[in-house]
Amino acid sequence: MRAAMMYGAGDVRIEDRPDPKIQQPTDALVRTVLSCVCGSDLWPYKSMPSTDTGRPMGHEFLGVVEETGSEVTGVKAGDLVVTPFTYCDNTCDYCAKGLHSSCRHGGRYGLDGVDGGQGEAVRVPQADGTLVRLPVREDSPLLPSLLALSDVMGTGHHGATTAGVSRGDSVLVIGDGAVGLCAVIAARRLGAERIILMGRHTDRTDLGREFGATDVIAERGDEGVARVRDLTAGVGVDRVVEAVGARPGLDTAFAAVTDGGTISRLGMPQYEEGPIGAAMIMRNITLTGGVSPARAYIEELMPDVLDGTIRPGRVFDRTISLDETPGAYRDMADRRVLKALITF
Amino acid sequence: MRAAMMYGAGDVRIEDRPDPKIQQPTDALVRTVLSCVCGSDLWPYKSMPSTDTGRPMGHEFLGVVEETGSEVTGVKAGDLVVTPFTYCDNTCDYCAKGLHSSCRHGGRYGLDGVDGGQGEAVRVPQADGTLVRLPVREDSPLLPSLLALSDVMGTGHHGATTAGVSRGDSVLVIGDGAVGLCAVIAARRLGAERIILMGRHTDRTDLGREFGATDVIAERGDEGVARVRDLTAGVGVDRVVEAVGARPGLDTAFAAVTDGGTISRLGMPQYEEGPIGAAMIMRNITLTGGVSPARAYIEELMPDVLDGTIRPGRVFDRTISLDETPGAYRDMADRRVLKALITF
Repeated sequence: MRAAMMYGAGDVRIEDRPDPKIQQPTDALVRTVLSCVCGSDLWPYKSMPSTDTGRPMGHEFLGVVEETGSEVTGVKAGDLVVTPFTYCDNTCDYCAKGLHSSCRHGGRYGLDGVDGGQGEAVRVPQADGTLVRLPVREDSPLLPSLLALSDVMGTGHHGATTAGVSRGDSVLVIGDGAVGLCAVIAARRLGAERIILMGRHTDRTDLGREFGATDVIAERGDEGVARVRDLTAGVGVDRVVEAVGARPGLDTAFAAVTDGGTISRLGMPQYEEGPIGAAMIMRNITLTGGVSPARAYIEELMPDVLDGTIRPGRVFDRTISLDETPGAYRDMADRRVLKALITF
Repeated sequence: MRAAMMYGAGDVRIEDRPDPKIQQPTDALVRTVLSCVCGSDLWPYKSMPSTDTGRPMGHEFLGVVEETGSEVTGVKAGDLVVTPFTYCDNTCDYCAKGLHSSCRHGGRYGLDGVDGGQGEAVRVPQADGTLVRLPVREDSPLLPSLLALSDVMGTGHHGATTAGVSRGDSVLVIGDGAVGLCAVIAARRLGAERIILMGRHTDRTDLGREFGATDVIAERGDEGVARVRDLTAGVGVDRVVEAVGARPGLDTAFAAVTDGGTISRLGMPQYEEGPIGAAMIMRNITLTGGVSPARAYIEELMPDVLDGTIRPGRVFDRTISLDETPGAYRDMADRRVLKALITF
């Protein structure tokens, strides 16, 4: 099969790889139908040291089950399925409390001999726990939005839910990437009254408005905070979803949130320490969020995708073939593309 | 009247002060019946620069209303009342959502011309919002436990509730001061199954066991964390209440909490930055807590005090007169006394 491999910063290649085979009785083989490039794929694309062996890329995909291990009972050959971006057993104590991202038998695609999602086929460990059947055909126009359940939509939802968004709340979403835009969808879905999207890419923030953002702020830093305060009668927002990961975004979050409010972080922090001293205590600010347990949310969100209530697949603004994937990394890194959809 | 004034680190004096008078129509004058010394009073006791003017001390008291301003309707002369440790209007947007610590018309005792609580009488601003009537007589043996609603019990409760303690949870309480011990009471009251108290003063941790601690850990740092892990089958605790404020306690909290768990901080941080980088995100740890909106909890907790379900007044291990207060500061700073009760 052919798959995307990364050999170092800026070096993504499409190569022939061994066809995956069932290795464990809990495995399933999935023929990929749709995959995509993630914002988090851009971290190694910008920084990975060169290597001779390469690393399989991609962790968001949906496809058709081709074969299952002897212990797999939940999916069978021919099923169209979507995966969360990490595999999991869906039965351990962490999964039982909805924290599939910490699954005791889970792991990440592209590591430990597991294929990446940007390839023609994938061996999926813990198939019964991981894969969710899709009640549509392979040619459904809903497929891109269902693929978004693999990561970005579940991640945006994780931000909004952990931030505690509820009816009538004011919410600030920092970052107009695919996750930030999905956080807008999620905040609206949970009943937020005011959704302020902070971002500087007009094409993205325009989509954010369609997703439910009531206000867009292009300014950053102190100016951005002043705009948020203006929009909230000086009070600040009830909830912040921080979908970037840079320290200035965190500082903005603390400055824009109201006393007693909650900041949920989705972006991987590009800092080790942060401002959690006396001011946070005096103001009773809560800091939450983290890596989304995407598996926990697929069944919850899927009905809204199926009936068209939410359309997170609109974050895909370019459709490419696998061979075009290296170029899509480049274009995403250069912010010419929001999120690239890979068809097979 | 006579009241405690602090003139600098280690310098508390009992002095004659002008009798308080009604200044605003929303004021009430309260004759103090019981007051006490707070762990937070020890911060200036250890560090306050010398001053010629002095600062009125104390913010926990209960007493009898002697006079009310023209707009006060909720309490009247003769009522026995308790105050939360900050005054508040109980009507602003922050109070309405239970965050009385951020009240828009609130403030702190001992500042801005308001008396401290360690004195014979106090002018209470925003009396209708602040004061809560006590359905007992001035000679009730429940008074010390009712006084604890002024701060330490409400603060421990704030820690347990913001940490999300619920039935069956495992909870680590870091710190065996009066607030930590009250957090044990609160965790048990909310149904925690396992309550691990981390502290090194046997007399205090013994009281913690009586309050509901199932385990006591005297070790700190890595050894303390290892003990917590041992007690929780390696998983870590669901909730941590950090009732000290020093950085090592926070590091212990992060190391001892399970993935997806919550750390609530009650101690004023003695650090400005903390470890909120990638590990917190990967593990979905929530950091919450803060200054307790004690007013929000008085009505909720009072029935349990009145019927003897909780007895937070047991944290008072010395009863003194106002004149003995300077010595009580010293003894509390030297950890010879847990919390001193001042009678009038």
